[in-house]
Amino acid sequence: MKIALAQLNYHIGNFKSNMELILKEVNSAKTAGADLIIFAELAICGYPPKDFLEFESFISDCENAIYEIAEACHGIAAIIGAPSKSKLKRGKRLHNSAYFLANGVVQSVHHKTLLPTYDVFDENRYFESAKEHDLIEYKGKTIAITICEDLWNIEGDMKYSTSPTELLDLKRADFMVNIAASPFSYQQQKERQKVLSWNAKKYQLPIFYVNHIGAQTELIFDGGSCVVNKLGELCAELAYFESETVVFDIENLPSAHQLQEKLKIEKMYHALVLGVRDYFVKSNFSKAIIGLSGGIDSALTLAIAVEALGKENVKSVLLPSKYSSDHSINDSIELCKNLDSPYETISIEEVVKSFNLSLSNSFQGLKEDVTEENIQARARGVILMAMSNKFGNILLNTSNKSEMAVGYGTLYGDMCGGLSVIGDVYKTEVFEMCRFINRNKEIIPESIITKPPSAELRPDQKDSDSLPDYKVLDAILFQYIECSKSGNKIINQGFEEDTVKRSIQLVNRNEYKRYQAAPILRVSPRAFGMGRLMPLVGEYTFNN
Amino acid sequence: MKIALAQLNYHIGNFKSNMELILKEVNSAKTAGADLIIFAELAICGYPPKDFLEFESFISDCENAIYEIAEACHGIAAIIGAPSKSKLKRGKRLHNSAYFLANGVVQSVHHKTLLPTYDVFDENRYFESAKEHDLIEYKGKTIAITICEDLWNIEGDMKYSTSPTELLDLKRADFMVNIAASPFSYQQQKERQKVLSWNAKKYQLPIFYVNHIGAQTELIFDGGSCVVNKLGELCAELAYFESETVVFDIENLPSAHQLQEKLKIEKMYHALVLGVRDYFVKSNFSKAIIGLSGGIDSALTLAIAVEALGKENVKSVLLPSKYSSDHSINDSIELCKNLDSPYETISIEEVVKSFNLSLSNSFQGLKEDVTEENIQARARGVILMAMSNKFGNILLNTSNKSEMAVGYGTLYGDMCGGLSVIGDVYKTEVFEMCRFINRNKEIIPESIITKPPSAELRPDQKDSDSLPDYKVLDAILFQYIECSKSGNKIINQGFEEDTVKRSIQLVNRNEYKRYQAAPILRVSPRAFGMGRLMPLVGEYTFNN
Repeated sequence: MKIALAQLNYHIGNFKSNMELILKEVNSAKTAGADLIIFAELAICGYPPKDFLEFESFISDCENAIYEIAEACHGIAAIIGAPSKSKLKRGKRLHNSAYFLANGVVQSVHHKTLLPTYDVFDENRYFESAKEHDLIEYKGKTIAITICEDLWNIEGDMKYSTSPTELLDLKRADFMVNIAASPFSYQQQKERQKVLSWNAKKYQLPIFYVNHIGAQTELIFDGGSCVVNKLGELCAELAYFESETVVFDIENLPSAHQLQEKLKIEKMYHALVLGVRDYFVKSNFSKAIIGLSGGIDSALTLAIAVEALGKENVKSVLLPSKYSSDHSINDSIELCKNLDSPYETISIEEVVKSFNLSLSNSFQGLKEDVTEENIQARARGVILMAMSNKFGNILLNTSNKSEMAVGYGTLYGDMCGGLSVIGDVYKTEVFEMCRFINRNKEIIPESIITKPPSAELRPDQKDSDSLPDYKVLDAILFQYIECSKSGNKIINQGFEEDTVKRSIQLVNRNEYKRYQAAPILRVSPRAFGMGRLMPLVGEYTFNN
Repeated sequence: MKIALAQLNYHIGNFKSNMELILKEVNSAKTAGADLIIFAELAICGYPPKDFLEFESFISDCENAIYEIAEACHGIAAIIGAPSKSKLKRGKRLHNSAYFLANGVVQSVHHKTLLPTYDVFDENRYFESAKEHDLIEYKGKTIAITICEDLWNIEGDMKYSTSPTELLDLKRADFMVNIAASPFSYQQQKERQKVLSWNAKKYQLPIFYVNHIGAQTELIFDGGSCVVNKLGELCAELAYFESETVVFDIENLPSAHQLQEKLKIEKMYHALVLGVRDYFVKSNFSKAIIGLSGGIDSALTLAIAVEALGKENVKSVLLPSKYSSDHSINDSIELCKNLDSPYETISIEEVVKSFNLSLSNSFQGLKEDVTEENIQARARGVILMAMSNKFGNILLNTSNKSEMAVGYGTLYGDMCGGLSVIGDVYKTEVFEMCRFINRNKEIIPESIITKPPSAELRPDQKDSDSLPDYKVLDAILFQYIECSKSGNKIINQGFEEDTVKRSIQLVNRNEYKRYQAAPILRVSPRAFGMGRLMPLVGEYTFNN
């Protein structure tokens, strides 16, 4: 039996484009002699469809699409993910399902049992768990279908009280299919292989695994669809960060090989490029605008945007004030020249003066403080948004994860933007990623990488005046954010007590800023945004 | 047996203040001769604790608090909500539990079975369902404990495949307890009574129901704890929007009466006042600032803020431009005088000129458009945020739900603010609420209520230039947002096709703005924010 794995870039709710992709692959696979083609979880509608699922017409659109694909399935069968209406008298009204299509009709529908509801997932919000678990018989083979999380209840991490693999009659099965929507983080590839290998070995079955590729706002899907043999060994991987369809012969699987992982920072870089590109493509925009400060964060954001959108589609704006150093301006210009990308300079001097004058009565007799710094950042925000409004491009936000964490940024100022490109990249990773981009030739000027980070909002300001060294800060933040360790636990790891307390307090105190931040491209296992839900008015007792 | 219902205002994660409240009530109830005192769901830590639950130290703090309360329970027993660690080998590591405390120790722990995961709820993210269902024996009575949603699986709306009321041996029970965290919406009171009445009648048991009172950012709890007799009749209600503890004698319940509901708009008003007050109290702020435009939205916001925080704690800022009419300025001043609340005027003229001059090169030869309007709104935002930064007060956002829906507002401009006060109040409800506030004397000047709504960002601008009449618009929005009806369904209700399509497209197109909006006090059954999760890059096929 020949099986095609179709790893495609869907767009949530865009049935027209999703159907075009799917029908094209059905026909190509048939031509290539495949008996079965497998598409990803909720491929029909894209993942995650969120509250679109509450609209009856959305569910009808999904059903109609399924019937249309079924009609194309003559001489080939297909397994494809879509929501289906529950026939149970009680419970949520939908299932997250895999449809088995053959001979022009829907042969059977198989529901997901384990519904992830943690981190960025909220499937229990929409779906009812499978109550029945049936195998598929097709061309003399017995197929066990599972849907993504269905395989993730493995030894040592049993998040669910039951597993569909324990409920399916797997002794009768010839192979297993897993259709997935498994978003990228830099550690996901290894986790995924561990899970697939564990299941293949335990049940002595080869597994055909199909994932999404492409980004849906924050969530980036890296593909990496694969075949694992019944010994749990990896036989074949599809492309990462690219669409691809490959046909395999189940009687003659490729020989096993080790998982070849790229460097963490390289994977993150490719994910961000895809994330930016798809955000624009799927929102029908082509042009971006970026405020270049001369610092490393905006430089990295620009380099990623140019790679994603093309150098001519990204406009940089330099917005110097009286505190901007000459080298910041020169470095920015050099960067734009290296990238051959257009830039423009607009001074914020006069606007800032005008604000200070307008406020002089109200602020009479009061000392300058962070207020005046924020006015500069916000004046830049207003100018960038005016450019965005006038020319119909999207402002890209340039804040990194360390700043986002400790609130080292101005709400409605440098926190402006339609999409946060590096908001899930710690400052220390920002440096690494710039080195990666410069690996063959200098794109980001060396002086941008080596100079001490500064917001340049007052004379001789340095980030280190108000924040711990980034190496220390990022290590503490990782323990607090990614690992949910309390202050005391982190101090016990050997970090200085004052530094830990101050860092964590800054994170907690700035929850209100992050609430209004742009959506962040997620590349870590724990990003700000929908994957980390903290109370705003809460009292953070685990400060210490 | 005498039973005290303690309806208290908790603060998420603030064990110190929660424990003070709880211990005080345990002692008072004991003095009043109560045998049992009942506190709300997750009373120990406040509701919803969100990802605080992922911190081990947070769970230890909850456990320690429970032990301390248990020690105070001599001569009185208590039922109180708190998270508990699961003893199951598989599944999520926590339960949402009710602790039964007596004779100085924890006697038993009872877990929630039905975990709401829809709208603003995400309990499946954290908790495992109860697998066992035991009754409590105390002083000769048999008590059935349920936790909030546990009673909500009623005829005609079976959201769950099982119910704890079917698993508990209710024939043996003398009465039922339901500890809840049931947030306010204007229709919740009636729903709640229906649910309690249905269960009481079906199982022939009186129910003692205890809810939270107080706001936790978006969610406002209105209290309304009550006793329902075994005929399903309401015997007693505790206060709405106020803390209260009342002792009942189970052998001598008050006689039944009809639920006396206040007007929808009055309930919403009281909820918003409580929402503003608690947001400030629980974030340790006391002072607010508001930009007064002369329009009805900022007028209503000011009136609510003054009621919540005191007239001396709310500062209004008038920010006229060349397009501001004299009557807008005069109306604003009259409003502040009626409320006896301070105001200040800062013209944005010079700042706007300065922006236009700075951008003149970049915008050479281009026509004026919405860009220039947004600059005005953003200049106001910068000035208000500067005042907020300098004086340490919180800027209150003044956008209403209709504007928020169709994106009739400027991101980083009039969308600025730490809290959206009326973002869940449709424009037509804004008018109603102003009439309610003026019911005894004119507080909001009549001319503010009667003049045609305008953003005053260009000469003679009116909302009606770009939006449908608010009565029609709000009716369409309600069908789309609250009822999840598609365009076609709404058109079939008799609305004009063009108006429906245009309204819905505006809602969809502006998802990106709402993503970055301030948290919104929730008063309707479907508010923007955590209760409505829509994809940003999604293709909205149910436009029509």
